[in-house]
Amino acid sequence: MENRIPRADESHRFQAAQLDMPPRLLLGPGPSNFHPRVRQALSMNEVGHLDPSFIHLMNEVQELLRYVWQTGNRFTIPVSGTGSAAMEATLANCVEPGDVVLIGVNGYFGERLCDMASRYRAEVRRIEKPWGEVFSPEEIKAGLERHKPAILGLVHAETSTGALQPMESIGRLCREFDCLLLLDTVTSLGGVPVLLDRWMVDIAYSGSQKCLSCPPGISPLTFGDRAMARLAARKTKVANWYLDMTLLGKYWGDERTYHHTAPINMNYAFREALRLVAEEGLESRWERHWKNAKLLWDGLGDLGIRCHVDERHRLPSLTTPVVPDGIDGRAVAGYLLRNFNIEVAAGLGQLAGKVWRIGLMGFNSRAENVTLLLSALEKALSAV
Amino acid sequence: MENRIPRADESHRFQAAQLDMPPRLLLGPGPSNFHPRVRQALSMNEVGHLDPSFIHLMNEVQELLRYVWQTGNRFTIPVSGTGSAAMEATLANCVEPGDVVLIGVNGYFGERLCDMASRYRAEVRRIEKPWGEVFSPEEIKAGLERHKPAILGLVHAETSTGALQPMESIGRLCREFDCLLLLDTVTSLGGVPVLLDRWMVDIAYSGSQKCLSCPPGISPLTFGDRAMARLAARKTKVANWYLDMTLLGKYWGDERTYHHTAPINMNYAFREALRLVAEEGLESRWERHWKNAKLLWDGLGDLGIRCHVDERHRLPSLTTPVVPDGIDGRAVAGYLLRNFNIEVAAGLGQLAGKVWRIGLMGFNSRAENVTLLLSALEKALSAV
Repeated sequence: MENRIPRADESHRFQAAQLDMPPRLLLGPGPSNFHPRVRQALSMNEVGHLDPSFIHLMNEVQELLRYVWQTGNRFTIPVSGTGSAAMEATLANCVEPGDVVLIGVNGYFGERLCDMASRYRAEVRRIEKPWGEVFSPEEIKAGLERHKPAILGLVHAETSTGALQPMESIGRLCREFDCLLLLDTVTSLGGVPVLLDRWMVDIAYSGSQKCLSCPPGISPLTFGDRAMARLAARKTKVANWYLDMTLLGKYWGDERTYHHTAPINMNYAFREALRLVAEEGLESRWERHWKNAKLLWDGLGDLGIRCHVDERHRLPSLTTPVVPDGIDGRAVAGYLLRNFNIEVAAGLGQLAGKVWRIGLMGFNSRAENVTLLLSALEKALSAV
Repeated sequence: MENRIPRADESHRFQAAQLDMPPRLLLGPGPSNFHPRVRQALSMNEVGHLDPSFIHLMNEVQELLRYVWQTGNRFTIPVSGTGSAAMEATLANCVEPGDVVLIGVNGYFGERLCDMASRYRAEVRRIEKPWGEVFSPEEIKAGLERHKPAILGLVHAETSTGALQPMESIGRLCREFDCLLLLDTVTSLGGVPVLLDRWMVDIAYSGSQKCLSCPPGISPLTFGDRAMARLAARKTKVANWYLDMTLLGKYWGDERTYHHTAPINMNYAFREALRLVAEEGLESRWERHWKNAKLLWDGLGDLGIRCHVDERHRLPSLTTPVVPDGIDGRAVAGYLLRNFNIEVAAGLGQLAGKVWRIGLMGFNSRAENVTLLLSALEKALSAV
């Protein structure tokens, strides 16, 4: 037997130190900190991905997701990857080569939708607004008339700008133009009202690590009947095996056919995060996010700092304060991290150097965090 | 403010019970149970995905992976998904439409490689062996001569059959035929010798939840210089945004450019799992897996049960005992789960109903587990 054991090369072997991470307060664009009960669930003892107890948990996760998304969609599941994987899954499954896909681009994530759709060989068209603004129903209608898309993709809560896209009446327009409505709810789900069925949204995705306050690594998506019909009518195989919903549907559906090994412990954590939402209730949760956002906005005003986004379209879960003239935004963020263990993010793309991105998401949307942040920010502004 | 809070539909809201999972001993084809230190690391306090402390951890994970894989490959990273995502990532990046990809198919995962490669529009060719057998260098040489592939894909440890593909001399053949060698090491990495550089493997992937004994949800891949050159020479964009290594490389490389939010806590757990391998040392670990597998094989022999795979090519981390005549294999597995909380799996594909799949992987490769399993199996055989 011993002759089957070769010598190992030791050149990359080293003794890593015991894991020790700093106690950060995550007030950037995500991840947010998670609730202590989510942490406990995460480290619960593991079972197999086809264990009867896990199958039961999968059903619970699906039903809790329907509540959080306010949808009756049967096909509502978490994808085994981060939010970007769920984002890509929606396009990979619904786009066939040559389809016209119209994207509302008013920030980084609209751009990414264009990039992803093009990789599935969609004919991508764009309507655009400056970063921080939103689309009016008239602008969307004009886009639908002009481009006659198979899918309209919008970002509900633009994490790069802090703008919240109003959704009333857009679903009806999409039906009128026989177009599927795809919605990015990454930074809105569980923090601000997302009413998928009322808004007639056909396809949506989100992340776990924003207003749901679960670690990153699992991310939900949902397909309504019109999207499922489109999936069933595909002429070509989905050009992505891992994210192929015709295969995944058999694992999450009645067949329970093995597809890939689900991230067991991430599903535990996700269930607990969703369970906390159901306990609190969506209305209370939405109100809490608004109240704490308002506290932040008022406090920023007191410091003489204005917000980039007009209050009518301002996202409660992510605020983009304008960096005052003469201040180095990155230096302030660095100061907050080094001196107070607080993470806030700098702007990106069109807003690089111009704004900060401050998240009050899920568990982190609490008055004590706002108070600490404002006080620390005041110190940082005078120190850098 | 209150008028911004709509009424929520309560129809899918329910009070889920406190999370409570049964204490399973996972002796199937994976996931395996993880070490108590991995569990602790998993629930360590979270930081942001661009936090300096996380960037430091990423470097450590990469270096530990190089040791475990016995490679100097600079591009060695964990993918933010389960093993199937890393598997797909290798093909998505290295295949361009029309490329000839030759796959050795002697089990379920060879079949999957064919399916995945076809989705990236490869011209897929196959060499085949019955499930449980392996390819000889002569058979592989004949395949290379006949098909002149750009990539040869092999499964080192076939989780569906329990066969271990010998790798000596295959890398040299691939260089001779100017072909990249891609290797599935999902059920071998960290359990049986995997010597990527010595074997001249260009591309490899694995999972976290087998012999590395980390929860599923993160999975490594590595590209050698020849694979990186191929990636750099691509004429088309990678047809998968989430798994595009030209983008991911910027996050894991010196630039640290945001791509997607890494699964922070899964990276903590993965680092600890790799750290445990480095502490134990690969040679000791390989020997431990052989010793406990031998214990299992001898014990099965004592029960009159033979193994499906010839001992010369038998995988220590996954054994496929033949279900004796007149015994219902699924009923035995069910009995073990219900009465002893032990998970073993039934066969699949060509081996459905014919074998069990018993894993002794990573933390679970221990004498006490073998002893318990053999004793429980004996009881199950007389009970069903």
